[in-house]
Amino acid sequence: MNYRISNNVIKRLPRYIRYLDLLASEGVEKVSSGELGRRMGITASQIRQDLNCFGGFGQQGYGYNVTYLYGKISEILGVNENYHAVIVGAGKLGQALAGSPVFTKRGVEVCGLFDVDPAVIGKQVDGVPVMSADLLEEFCGKNHVDIGVLTLPASEAHAAAERLAACGVKGIWNYTSTELFSTDHGITVQNVHMGDSLMMLCYEIREKDGEDR
Amino acid sequence: MNYRISNNVIKRLPRYIRYLDLLASEGVEKVSSGELGRRMGITASQIRQDLNCFGGFGQQGYGYNVTYLYGKISEILGVNENYHAVIVGAGKLGQALAGSPVFTKRGVEVCGLFDVDPAVIGKQVDGVPVMSADLLEEFCGKNHVDIGVLTLPASEAHAAAERLAACGVKGIWNYTSTELFSTDHGITVQNVHMGDSLMMLCYEIREKDGEDR
Repeated sequence: MNYRISNNVIKRLPRYIRYLDLLASEGVEKVSSGELGRRMGITASQIRQDLNCFGGFGQQGYGYNVTYLYGKISEILGVNENYHAVIVGAGKLGQALAGSPVFTKRGVEVCGLFDVDPAVIGKQVDGVPVMSADLLEEFCGKNHVDIGVLTLPASEAHAAAERLAACGVKGIWNYTSTELFSTDHGITVQNVHMGDSLMMLCYEIREKDGEDR
Repeated sequence: MNYRISNNVIKRLPRYIRYLDLLASEGVEKVSSGELGRRMGITASQIRQDLNCFGGFGQQGYGYNVTYLYGKISEILGVNENYHAVIVGAGKLGQALAGSPVFTKRGVEVCGLFDVDPAVIGKQVDGVPVMSADLLEEFCGKNHVDIGVLTLPASEAHAAAERLAACGVKGIWNYTSTELFSTDHGITVQNVHMGDSLMMLCYEIREKDGEDR
């Protein structure tokens, strides 16, 4: 299966997944493009256009089957490929992520946490063992690891990405404030800069305060 | 002080902050637009254009003072306004955020965690008390709360946002998969959809795998 879908459509697919998941959890079986559009704040014709890119799923006047569409978009996104992940940095965020449904919902299994702190090494977090960072290469050599999650100090991000790339890990999910580029270590990267989002929130609050005065 | 800066420039400012923070941590005092651009992967002229929007900070052939520029952009973004936040949902993510430098670095103080689970109510997480969700209105009435962080189940997001808005909270930092719009409850929102980012990573890994085959 090999769809050729524009990047702009691809970027919108996770949003569809989120809304379809919500609809399914509400017990909704069918949804019209009009209703889905109303919820998502986009037009019905935009939805039909997006979903037609990979073959029309809906039937005129009938609507989309929520479960079927969810599965189809998941397949296109490569969700449920049973990827394996390690988390580098077993601080509070790393530990919170280890047991998070954010992974299980996308079929990603977290198989190890790594840290340099002897106080956490040897622990289990939601069934995931915390190992010494020295053992990263050995672990990746013995286990198939696709994704490395970076929740360690920003100053260590590049070195960790370098080591993961050398181990054959294919993607980095980077939570540090250091920005990584896919070109840096020849490895696919998604950056999650939580601080950027908080700064934008602070900005918008202050702007709105200014208007209200 | 009231700058009128385009939204596109504003959206780029958190990135500048991150890079300036990194430079400062490396002990760098001055940086040229060329060097900053090289690190950020943008052109020197783009940087000069962005920073000229709110008054030129640099001196020709001399470069930008890292600390001064960091402070100036922070001011523009409304960082360090000493906002107060509550976290609604004291699960693992909520607890991890409570003590996270992501807040302190932007001058935001987390003053309370709220949950419905008797097992966590009454605890302290990094000095922040976990209170019963029933007490949210009472707490917000007695304390000045600017920001509500949502780390509760997605199905509860709208109800929590509604309650926070009624309490006079100005901004929502939403970590649930339910998308909130600023128009929903008349309150500024920033959504952090971690799952979207993970799905894009899975997609890109699979695409790259396909190319490599």
